[in-house]
Amino acid sequence: MAEAAVGIIMGSQSDWPTLKGAADVLDELQVPWEARIVSAHRTPDRLWSYAPEAAARGVRVIVAGAGGAAHLPGMMASKTRMPVIGVPIETRALGGLDSLYSIVQMPRGFPVATMAIGAAGAVNGGLMAAAILAVSDEALAGRLDAWRAALSASIPEAPQDV
Amino acid sequence: MAEAAVGIIMGSQSDWPTLKGAADVLDELQVPWEARIVSAHRTPDRLWSYAPEAAARGVRVIVAGAGGAAHLPGMMASKTRMPVIGVPIETRALGGLDSLYSIVQMPRGFPVATMAIGAAGAVNGGLMAAAILAVSDEALAGRLDAWRAALSASIPEAPQDV
Amino acid sequence: MAEAAVGIIMGSQSDWPTLKGAADVLDELQVPWEARIVSAHRTPDRLWSYAPEAAARGVRVIVAGAGGAAHLPGMMASKTRMPVIGVPIETRALGGLDSLYSIVQMPRGFPVATMAIGAAGAVNGGLMAAAILAVSDEALAGRLDAWRAALSASIPEAPQDV
Amino acid sequence: MAEAAVGIIMGSQSDWPTLKGAADVLDELQVPWEARIVSAHRTPDRLWSYAPEAAARGVRVIVAGAGGAAHLPGMMASKTRMPVIGVPIETRALGGLDSLYSIVQMPRGFPVATMAIGAAGAVNGGLMAAAILAVSDEALAGRLDAWRAALSASIPEAPQDV
Amino acid sequence: MAEAAVGIIMGSQSDWPTLKGAADVLDELQVPWEARIVSAHRTPDRLWSYAPEAAARGVRVIVAGAGGAAHLPGMMASKTRMPVIGVPIETRALGGLDSLYSIVQMPRGFPVATMAIGAAGAVNGGLMAAAILAVSDEALAGRLDAWRAALSASIPEAPQDV
Amino acid sequence: MAEAAVGIIMGSQSDWPTLKGAADVLDELQVPWEARIVSAHRTPDRLWSYAPEAAARGVRVIVAGAGGAAHLPGMMASKTRMPVIGVPIETRALGGLDSLYSIVQMPRGFPVATMAIGAAGAVNGGLMAAAILAVSDEALAGRLDAWRAALSASIPEAPQDV
Amino acid sequence: MAEAAVGIIMGSQSDWPTLKGAADVLDELQVPWEARIVSAHRTPDRLWSYAPEAAARGVRVIVAGAGGAAHLPGMMASKTRMPVIGVPIETRALGGLDSLYSIVQMPRGFPVATMAIGAAGAVNGGLMAAAILAVSDEALAGRLDAWRAALSASIPEAPQDV
Amino acid sequence: MAEAAVGIIMGSQSDWPTLKGAADVLDELQVPWEARIVSAHRTPDRLWSYAPEAAARGVRVIVAGAGGAAHLPGMMASKTRMPVIGVPIETRALGGLDSLYSIVQMPRGFPVATMAIGAAGAVNGGLMAAAILAVSDEALAGRLDAWRAALSASIPEAPQDV
Repeated sequence: MAEAAVGIIMGSQSDWPTLKGAADVLDELQVPWEARIVSAHRTPDRLWSYAPEAAARGVRVIVAGAGGAAHLPGMMASKTRMPVIGVPIETRALGGLDSLYSIVQMPRGFPVATMAIGAAGAVNGGLMAAAILAVSDEALAGRLDAWRAALSASIPEAPQDV
Repeated sequence: MAEAAVGIIMGSQSDWPTLKGAADVLDELQVPWEARIVSAHRTPDRLWSYAPEAAARGVRVIVAGAGGAAHLPGMMASKTRMPVIGVPIETRALGGLDSLYSIVQMPRGFPVATMAIGAAGAVNGGLMAAAILAVSDEALAGRLDAWRAALSASIPEAPQDV
Repeated sequence: MAEAAVGIIMGSQSDWPTLKGAADVLDELQVPWEARIVSAHRTPDRLWSYAPEAAARGVRVIVAGAGGAAHLPGMMASKTRMPVIGVPIETRALGGLDSLYSIVQMPRGFPVATMAIGAAGAVNGGLMAAAILAVSDEALAGRLDAWRAALSASIPEAPQDV
Repeated sequence: MAEAAVGIIMGSQSDWPTLKGAADVLDELQVPWEARIVSAHRTPDRLWSYAPEAAARGVRVIVAGAGGAAHLPGMMASKTRMPVIGVPIETRALGGLDSLYSIVQMPRGFPVATMAIGAAGAVNGGLMAAAILAVSDEALAGRLDAWRAALSASIPEAPQDV
Repeated sequence: MAEAAVGIIMGSQSDWPTLKGAADVLDELQVPWEARIVSAHRTPDRLWSYAPEAAARGVRVIVAGAGGAAHLPGMMASKTRMPVIGVPIETRALGGLDSLYSIVQMPRGFPVATMAIGAAGAVNGGLMAAAILAVSDEALAGRLDAWRAALSASIPEAPQDV
Repeated sequence: MAEAAVGIIMGSQSDWPTLKGAADVLDELQVPWEARIVSAHRTPDRLWSYAPEAAARGVRVIVAGAGGAAHLPGMMASKTRMPVIGVPIETRALGGLDSLYSIVQMPRGFPVATMAIGAAGAVNGGLMAAAILAVSDEALAGRLDAWRAALSASIPEAPQDV
Repeated sequence: MAEAAVGIIMGSQSDWPTLKGAADVLDELQVPWEARIVSAHRTPDRLWSYAPEAAARGVRVIVAGAGGAAHLPGMMASKTRMPVIGVPIETRALGGLDSLYSIVQMPRGFPVATMAIGAAGAVNGGLMAAAILAVSDEALAGRLDAWRAALSASIPEAPQDV
Repeated sequence: MAEAAVGIIMGSQSDWPTLKGAADVLDELQVPWEARIVSAHRTPDRLWSYAPEAAARGVRVIVAGAGGAAHLPGMMASKTRMPVIGVPIETRALGGLDSLYSIVQMPRGFPVATMAIGAAGAVNGGLMAAAILAVSDEALAGRLDAWRAALSASIPEAPQDV
């Protein structure tokens, strides 16, 4: 398999059912990815070493999901110049609003490209990673155009009773 | 002047004092930009034509700011495969939470890379645009690294009484 | 069947179980309607063409439901002078508050007549469409008066233990 | 002056600076209006008598603004079949979110066409009233089309530094 | 049975499972009550007539529960000098925050004694009604003291594993 | 001066400009009151002793204002059978929503009759205290009726331009 | 068993399934604890007597959990100089946001060391208690270091499909 | 000067006017402190090195203030076993609710002892640090008792008109 261009990282195994949506859409677009658990709080050393090691392996965009006091995307953005896409994981008590605020409200200097809360945000994290790579990859741009066109074509004219 | 690589669009003249932060940081990074008013509601035809025309001019990333029922970033994301970065403008009644929800909660298929509400988000919109272009531009990557290093170096060790 | 006077549009098939409440109450009031899927993001061309085509078919009021970053009602309001009624669909993470903000906080110039979140809002969307048509349709005004009187008459004096 | 077609009502004199925006845009569109203070709590008898008396005078649409526990629009919707448009007034402690919830979350049977919080919502309340009347008034429809076209035409291509 | 001293009113049959908690605690305190459905929107005439008729029957305090745009408690407070206690019913989309805001944020002149959202609030509505009556009823004051003492005495020293 | 029938207590001197609204309206209604600073956290012993001492002096209703983690009204409700009316003070960071939640969300057994946030809530706290006393005081009931009638009579028919 | 160094208190038996997480982690760290039900509202006398009695037994840190208008942690902080750690219990209507605000927004003078809402907050309450004791207990510091290291070591490198 | 027992750290010079409240109260309690700017995002290396270096200098408790996506307190808690007290800084758009969520909603394993938003929280951060040190420092415990007693004694019996 080709070297991964997108690194999908998450704070916990429990985030993977959500984040897998990013991996699946990258598969559809033939963009190679890798997935790692990098907990900002439980494995801070991985937080420190991940970005340079991943960059050396060929990773050029990072998709980072986390929930609650979701520090992983922002801390990763502090440690690498690569674009970091943040996916707020839905939470039990606050619905993911805590995750959203912790990811999106970054200070001047360290942007995180924040997606919607939950499953739609994870798929969109994969699509945004692809769109970023497509800026300089015409073949991928074509596949992304086709993916988008297929999505549009799949919408029926009128709703069906169920 | 070189052709613009980043298109900064906004829903209204009143958004420019915020969005100018994106333009200024792009200037610091020597990334050429253009700024246009594209109102999703008042000028829907511009919404339709902007992306292909801008792409033809060489624009490769879009930074879109809007407030309230902020439809511009998401509608632009629907009309172009280019990465779209959204900046929620602060609002009077709801502080910009309306802008944030309207921009970030995009459905599967159409991501908007959402930044923080207000001024910090605008500067970060420019930085994210630069980071996306730097994926395939080593010289820009170097300038971005230097900008980040300078920011870090500017922080004093201890706070000063005022 | 008579030509539709109300166009019920929605961003997705998954909105239909909610929006069907608008259709059902219009049936009770003998107001002909049509239902279409018009996704602001996935089918922007339908967004552009729907209003003039529907108007040509006789549609005079639009009920538009959408969830999350719910751009459909507001974008439709930008494209037509017809009254647009917005129904915020309930969402998983934020309960529909994202849908409500995205629909109701429209800027000066482009109102959306926003209803309650979810099922009650959908029924009320149908009733508001009927009330608008009843401004110039005395027969319908009479049927709407009767519908309201029947609702009031159906309320028992005292609650029943269950 | 022609008889008023739109009744602008408000809970308090202090709402008039906001609601006047509805009156002004109706003036621009040559739609005659009347303005009354009808406090749901302080003058409940006016609440009871306003709608039939106004209808007898020729009023066909009501724009109702209120703040806090904003009961005026919803109670008016209970008392008349005419379309009622609600404008949530901005409040000091909660920014108008209390007004918005009290107006928009109406139960099945009694819709209020809710506008944005504050000044933009008031102008839009006037525009929605005009759009409703324009369903059966071609001349007004033409004036509304022209108003909308003029608004769109007033938007400059690019933002101006200030 | 003695004439009712407390009137328990609610917007809908569906509120009764919550409001019954008020009735039950009044039974424990031997305070006679009556329960009526008085919908602010669906039965506005009952809203108008309830308070004077109930007062004539001997009712001296009102407990009013409602959900969403919950106008019943506040409108009742406008129509009677009797103390009105409001119970916000839990709602599906917003958890009852809409009910709470609509009940508690009353303007100067028309207080509603607002309780907690949902079941605890309903029981407390009954207790507050009893406490108000106990201001001038020593026997009831004694029963209320005993009820409170029994509640306190029922709390075990330490939690039990389950 | 007659013995106070209403005890107005507050957590801090800084709450007095708000709470004074309760005192003023009680003056208008000729209901004697006393005001005390009773800080739940800073003077817990006053919290313990206030209610029985005040009751012994003739106080029969308590109006308690507090802000932030506003424990005074609820703790007072735990210590006395007298009706306790809570006034949430507006706060800088959260607008008083913290005060509101801390006061209104009382558990089963210990109601606090919660008023609106801020100045309107304070006046209404005084009015609710008067309404409670009026249950068994016909003269006061008459003065309260007159106060309400005067308020209603003071509302002009139409708004005045300013 | 050794005398308890940590007192775990809660407003209700129903809080114990959450708070037990604090007890369990203290067991893992060999820190002796005691658990008591101390209801701020139902057993105010326990609130008054708990802290000095517990201190006399050797308790040096308190973990207090409560939900809704959660006064227990803050009132305990008012009654003792010992560090008080607050755990907001999740609530049905507001998800625990009411508990969080009531615990964290303490006024100047009486801090409560507030943890996350719900189960994670309870475990962290136990860990914070241990960290406080470890400031002056090197053996415990070592066990806490080991606990943290084991947690970090338990994190797999990559997520596993499920 | 004695070696610092408390380390006060903050994300930015702009946080110092708030955090200085912690330093001032520690001065009153004669607890030596040090203040440093440690930006989680701009100076991640300081984040890594601060805790062990400070511990080696004698620091035993950390007070960390930050605003927006406030990662400093939580990241510091990940890097040290010392108790970390978090102070959410008030923010312009969201009032500090973003800061609060980012600090308090920490996952299992890494507690941050969170204080109120803004100035009161900063003072309380200093007091909580002192209370933690007082667990094993009787002299400090006495000074803290005296400080608390003086605060209580400063509260007047009744409010003063202003």
